Amino acid sequence: MKSHRATLTFHLDDRLGFRNITHAVEHELVTSGIRDGLCLVNAMHITASVFINDDEPGLHHDFEKWLEWLAPYDPSSARYEHNKAGEDNGDAHLKRQIMGREVVIAVTNGSLDFGPWEQIFYGEFDGRREKRVLIKIIGE
Amino acid sequence: MKSHRATLTFHLDDRLGFRNITHAVEHELVTSGIRDGLCLVNAMHITASVFINDDEPGLHHDFEKWLEWLAPYDPSSARYEHNKAGEDNGDAHLKRQIMGREVVIAVTNGSLDFGPWEQIFYGEFDGRREKRVLIKIIGE
Amino acid sequence: MKSHRATLTFHLDDRLGFRNITHAVEHELVTSGIRDGLCLVNAMHITASVFINDDEPGLHHDFEKWLEWLAPYDPSSARYEHNKAGEDNGDAHLKRQIMGREVVIAVTNGSLDFGPWEQIFYGEFDGRREKRVLIKIIGE
Repeated sequence: MKSHRATLTFHLDDRLGFRNITHAVEHELVTSGIRDGLCLVNAMHITASVFINDDEPGLHHDFEKWLEWLAPYDPSSARYEHNKAGEDNGDAHLKRQIMGREVVIAVTNGSLDFGPWEQIFYGEFDGRREKRVLIKIIGE
Repeated sequence: MKSHRATLTFHLDDRLGFRNITHAVEHELVTSGIRDGLCLVNAMHITASVFINDDEPGLHHDFEKWLEWLAPYDPSSARYEHNKAGEDNGDAHLKRQIMGREVVIAVTNGSLDFGPWEQIFYGEFDGRREKRVLIKIIGE
Repeated sequence: MKSHRATLTFHLDDRLGFRNITHAVEHELVTSGIRDGLCLVNAMHITASVFINDDEPGLHHDFEKWLEWLAPYDPSSARYEHNKAGEDNGDAHLKRQIMGREVVIAVTNGSLDFGPWEQIFYGEFDGRREKRVLIKIIGE
């Protein structure tokens, strides 16, 4: 069994945003030399997500509006008890549950084994500081 | 390390529906000859899900009603900017985030290592065309 | 390839609750002797979750309030058709979809490859009976 580990670092200027990381993950897969196995990609922070969906700006706008409806940003502790501890990111912990922490992708013939529209995204819900994504690939 | 790859193809007549795919996944596991490892099952399309829950028609009705509350079908672009691009499936991209893209299942003694009620489902949110599910099993 | 399997058993006195299981998973990783690979942790029951987030009581209160808004407990079958079959836990099946069934964690240098605040939780949504979590680790 071979394995490969890498991290990606992000520093978004906004509180919330999405970044397409498909090419970065493909680059690590090529570097790994692994032809067949599984590739895990996960946020290393608990107010961020890694997910697979469409690379379409209108959809990303829809995600943002929808997440604000589901878990509105509110720095007060009236809505989020988490914010009593000096934080203002209670909403971000909830948004991350909707979008997920991680994806697991099959590796076949040295490529990410994807359908026609699958793209990997980093989802940030409490940006303006440095955060990381972990890529771990195992196989042969 | 051994690995096995297979796809399942679906063409639902309705926009939204659920199909129990547990037996199909078990069939691929037997075909693989793998006795110990991990089994990934994922939707290859971004308006569909693979998830594990109960095989009970009342619950599936509840899922459908709940998903329509969370992300109502609306072909207009008033609600979903994604629909400005000539699509009518903005809701389906959101529903898929709730239900998830994939499941990872332990393989032990040649079987899916499941609790008493775990069943695997394909969830379709934009049907009436051909779509695929990927099964990837690695182990020994 | 080496593999290790273990289960954890829970019996919560309340319907809903969260338990930090990070140390128990780390204990199984040390027992396994696996230094490099992947670790799957999943609920074996379909009204429970395993997820990664923050170990902060205010946040857990926020999760509970939010989940009750998204899928209120209601033993009647007016809201949940699932409850027509003699169950009262329709809400719990929905809550589990929000919080997820499983996490997959990279194993590097014999440790769970975590960011600074990642902690693993068991989420119970229909307690007061015995339920299990599966830990499966593969690697070398």
